[in-house]
Parts: sequence; structure tokens; C-alpha cells
Amino acid sequence: MRFGVSAPGKVILHGEHAVVYGKGAVAVSIDLRTEIRVEPCADVVLLLTNLKHEFRWPLQKFDQLSDMSLVDSEIAQPTEQVLKKLHEAFDITPQSKCYGSIITFLFLYISISRKAKQESVGAKIVVSSALPIGGGLGSSAAYSVALAAAILRLYGAVKSTHGVPSEEDLSLINKWSFQSETILHGKPSGIDNSVCTFGGALLFRLGKIQELTSRIPLYNILLVNTKVPRDTKQLVASVRSRAERQRKIFCAVLDAVDEVSSQCWLNLRDSNLTNEQQYQAAAELIAINHHLMNAIGAGHPQLDKMVSLASAAGFSSKLTGAGGGGCGFVLIEIIESADESKSTNERVASLKTQLEENGMQCWQVAMGCPGIMYSA
Amino acid sequence: MRFGVSAPGKVILHGEHAVVYGKGAVAVSIDLRTEIRVEPCADVVLLLTNLKHEFRWPLQKFDQLSDMSLVDSEIAQPTEQVLKKLHEAFDITPQSKCYGSIITFLFLYISISRKAKQESVGAKIVVSSALPIGGGLGSSAAYSVALAAAILRLYGAVKSTHGVPSEEDLSLINKWSFQSETILHGKPSGIDNSVCTFGGALLFRLGKIQELTSRIPLYNILLVNTKVPRDTKQLVASVRSRAERQRKIFCAVLDAVDEVSSQCWLNLRDSNLTNEQQYQAAAELIAINHHLMNAIGAGHPQLDKMVSLASAAGFSSKLTGAGGGGCGFVLIEIIESADESKSTNERVASLKTQLEENGMQCWQVAMGCPGIMYSA
Repeated sequence: MRFGVSAPGKVILHGEHAVVYGKGAVAVSIDLRTEIRVEPCADVVLLLTNLKHEFRWPLQKFDQLSDMSLVDSEIAQPTEQVLKKLHEAFDITPQSKCYGSIITFLFLYISISRKAKQESVGAKIVVSSALPIGGGLGSSAAYSVALAAAILRLYGAVKSTHGVPSEEDLSLINKWSFQSETILHGKPSGIDNSVCTFGGALLFRLGKIQELTSRIPLYNILLVNTKVPRDTKQLVASVRSRAERQRKIFCAVLDAVDEVSSQCWLNLRDSNLTNEQQYQAAAELIAINHHLMNAIGAGHPQLDKMVSLASAAGFSSKLTGAGGGGCGFVLIEIIESADESKSTNERVASLKTQLEENGMQCWQVAMGCPGIMYSA
Repeated sequence: MRFGVSAPGKVILHGEHAVVYGKGAVAVSIDLRTEIRVEPCADVVLLLTNLKHEFRWPLQKFDQLSDMSLVDSEIAQPTEQVLKKLHEAFDITPQSKCYGSIITFLFLYISISRKAKQESVGAKIVVSSALPIGGGLGSSAAYSVALAAAILRLYGAVKSTHGVPSEEDLSLINKWSFQSETILHGKPSGIDNSVCTFGGALLFRLGKIQELTSRIPLYNILLVNTKVPRDTKQLVASVRSRAERQRKIFCAVLDAVDEVSSQCWLNLRDSNLTNEQQYQAAAELIAINHHLMNAIGAGHPQLDKMVSLASAAGFSSKLTGAGGGGCGFVLIEIIESADESKSTNERVASLKTQLEENGMQCWQVAMGCPGIMYSA
């Protein structure tokens, strides 16, 4: 059996940090994809091309684990007991090289075959990704989603074989990828795997996810990596400490962020807005929210540099993810004529040059693209 | 009769724009003063040294106006009728050179003499000011306050003759200067003339003013004029237009600004805080509020430049006044030892150089200084 599958990355449009305090967040897919090729093989092989690592296990290793306890539900859960068995059988520990990639792979490979009531089959799984790792762009979720989709198809657990899977199959892929994310992140919100599975945009608030896969204007954005290393845990802690010192101010700012997410969601769903109106509304919300992120202490001088260069070029820009460095994005208007396209492209190219001169890395990508996609 | 009088300028620490929507604002006096020398003279002479203009009127002009109607209260009011009489008697119109300075002078000079039931006396009034005009630093209020104090003393309407006037005299000076501000600004809030009269700091909310003249840490600030011309009316209108488009977000941001003003006021009044604690709290509120001003659209790239240069030097900074250019300030810590002083002075000097290299003008001034002061 040979086939391909891919999953997009994501950006948080609005609501980073605020989501920790029960406020809304809006995430959208981006067309930087993680691709998996599945090819026949006698062994089970995981080739991580970006990391230049190949892992190979004989098939009988997998069959030895036929007694692996799985909870009696549609989806297996990576309990401590399950992970312990995998550690023992495959001689790995959390300190092993590429541990996260391997343990999620093994968990999905074995659990899905058991759930499908099939014997393990050999396969070569080749993973490559256009997403930078650890940049807050959903690299781990895209990996989990693409992997779940690949293994589910390998074991005939989904019916879809080409293009966008059916709603039912998407839902199953999403559930498995959430388990994989649980291994990697403890208690994930489910935002990342959902947006990488379904594509489009989603609104997340207090554990509830609303998805929107149609009528999203396909903005382009310029994704910007400031190259400033960030420490998400440290940053979340420092934001929390400001929150504690300035509780009332902080609550009011988070209410403002919550309103930004709500308004963004309303605009995305409003089919009466023209593209130009959608763009103007989106641009204003992005500009406002960057300043609110600064107010809660999630900013960084390089992110402000990005915003000021973008602003001078007539574009709206904000940090995305935890902030304090890391990535941001610049919203690029929807192009409706060839003339506009030329002028916009020139402005974007010139901005890109300036950002790069300031040590940043840029990718121009489409937002709101499809989620999981199968190919031949 | 010869004497001097001076009044300080002011900065808005927090609450610009928000105050228009009923939120709190905190203003403090700054030690850039408008000084008036009063000297004997046969005529009535107003010498505006900064503007290099002298106006001279024969004394009988003033006595001709003995029938000028004044409402029957402690303070005269510059009604349309009163202003019309002044225009006719002195042959001026709102288009005349230095109109604002002249009309307020004439109104106060004549009204105060009538209230004091005295004939007009000749005097040379020499005005000079360290305050830039139109920079949002209270140049007009300092002029009104110093002028009212000078004329009240000239006509024996106040008892104080040296140093800080009595509470009663301060209150009278404040009332007259408010009338003068009414001529210049239509419906002034009363913040500016109050802080220039009383000095120290004040909290203004919904027409109510709380004053604080003691226990204010005398921070130094670096006042920064970005030299970007601003148009307050246009800026207030553009902020209002964003407010209307993004009503809920805007309300939440203004609530946050209101909390900043409240917290600032609590900190200024809290005698249990050490100087270091006061400074840290003040610095954090200033940093937060600059971003909130950006979020409502009152920012400008040069103001952000100021904030980022200050931040890199370890100082907290924000715009003051309407924004969109104009002025900002950098908070300088309270210096408790000679060693610290040297290090701080060096950092401030280096920051000043950088700001000047970026086309800005700086003055290091004390905040929270005394208000009106008489001298020999």
C-alpha cells in the first residue's frame, strides 16, 4: 500500500495567553504542511527527514505487544501503563533521541492496529515538514494529525482515500491525534490538533470548539520568525506574575482580548461583508491585539520592530503564540486585480527584505487552507 | 508694587482620552514654570517674552469699562457679552495676533479690579515660560494660573505675598484661572488649572478632582517632545471613530486605563510603600498604559521609538496628552545613594543623546513640585 497524506500548521490569530484564563481564542490553518508518504516495507520504519533520523523495528516487536491493554472505548488512551509497556518493549526513555516523535508513532501504530483488530503490518513512514519546530506554528499537532491519518488509512479504519476525508473520518483522525498530543503536551487544549485536522478557522473558549471550514477569506500572511528564542513556560509565568500584581487592569485587558476574538469570529462568519471590509476589520483587530499583548507583558522589542516595519509598509501585524520572541505574522490584503496584486507584491517583497535585514525569517503562506488531505 | 509669581506646567500621567469617556485621569505638576514679573508702570503693559510681543494700553481704556457687567458671584464669568465688550473696547478679534493671551489677560485684569472694587492701576506684566506652547504640558493653564495670581495680588485680593499661598488664596486663584481657561478652551475639565495652581498630583474623574500635595515621591522625568506635530481634535476624532467601530473592545480597554489611573493614585497615596516599591509600581503602570494608548489608536511610531529606546536603557516610558505625536515622558528612578545617582545619570544622559539623535527634544524635570509661588 502506497499513499500520501498531509496536514497544515496553524497560527493563533487572537487569544494567546487569554485562553489560559478562560477567554476565547481564534486559530487558523496555514499552508505550511507536514507530509507523510507511506510505502510497503517488511519492517516498520519511521524516517524523520527534517531531523535526518531513521528508526527501524522488526515487525515481530509489534506483535509481541498484542496483550497491550487498551481501554474499552473507540480511542485508546496513552495511560502511564501503556507508555511504560512501550518504553520497555522498544527500549526507549523520555531521554531518548526524538522521543516525542517515536513514542507518539509507536502508540498510534500499535493502538490503531489493535482497535482495527488487525495484525501489525510493515510499512515505511516518511515524514517531512515545512513547519519550523517549536515556533508555535503547530508542528507537533501537524505531525500527530498526519500520523494518525496515515496509520488509520493503513489499517483501513477510515474510508477516505483521496482529498479531504469525510466528516466522520476527520472526526476519528482528530480524536486519535488528540491522544498523541496528550503524550507530547500533558493537557492540550485540543485547538492545535482540531485546526490541523479540519483546516479553516476555529474559535475555542472554555474547552468548547467551534469550527469554520468555509467562507473564510483566504488571506495571505507573512509568517515572521523573529529568531528570538522563547521560553513559553517562563513567559506564561511572567505574564501570570504581572496578572497577580495588577489584577484588575489585567482582567480588563483580557476582557478586551476576549472581545477581539469574538469580533474576529463574527467577521469571519459574516457573509455580508465584502472582502475589503473583512480585510479592514481583520487588520484593525490584529493591530489592537498586538498592543494588548504588549500590555500584559508578552511582547519583545523584535516583535515591535516587526510591527513597526509592517505598519510603515501599510500592513497590520502581531505576535502569535506565547510571544516574548518566537513568531509573529503580517496580514496581507486579499488581491482582487492584477494591478493591485503587483503593487501589493512589491510592498510585501520590500517588507520581507527589511525584516530579513533585521535578522528575521519570513514565509508567505495562505491562511484558512484545508486540513488533512490524502493523496495517491 | 514689584513682585514675581510662577506656576508649574503639568503632565498627564494616566487617563488621556479615557477621561473624555468618564474614566479617571492622573495629572502631576512639572517643574517647568511660567514666570510673571509685575512692575510699576503708568500704562498697562503685557510683555510676552517667548513670543517677543509687547502690548501697551493707556490706563483710561480700562476705566472706560467700569460699566462692564459682571455676574453677581465671587468670580466673574467670561460670557459672550463680556468678551464682546472687550473686543470692542480694545479693538481685537479672535483673529488678532496673540488673541488668547490678550483676551484672558484683559478679562482677568478688568474683572479682578472690579471684584476688588478698585480702580485699575498701571503695571508692566512680563511673562516668560520654560514650557513649550501646544505640547500638552499645560502652557496655557500655567499662563492662566500665574496671571490670575499676579493680578489678584496686584489688587490686594489675596493675602499671601511670599512662597506658597494659603489654601484660601489657592482656591481663589484656581477659580479665576478656570474662567481664563474657559475663554481659551471652551469647556475645560479643570484638571490643568488645578494641578498648575496646587502642584503635586491630582485624580480627576467625572468632574470631581482629588488633590494630593504631599507624600508624592518627587520622581524625575525626562520629558520628550517627539517634534511630530499633532492635531488633538483630529486625533480625538480618530480615536472616537475606532471606538465606534470596536465598541466592546474599546470599553474594555478604557476600563483597563481607568484601573491604571486608580492603581496609580492608590500607590501615590500609600505611605507604606518604600521609594523603590513606589517606583517599580509606577514604572509598570506607565509601561502598560502606553500599550493601551496604542490599542485605542493614540500612538505614533516616534512615540514607540521613545518607548523602545527608554526600555532598552531600563526605563519605563509613555506618551502624554493626546498622542499621535506630541510629547511623552520617561520615568527616572528615585536616587538614594551617590553611586546609584552616578549610574542613573549616565544612563539618562546616554538615553537623552539617543532620543536627540532621533530628532526629539528632552528636558529632565521634577514631577510633583509645588504649584503657584510668590516671590519678591
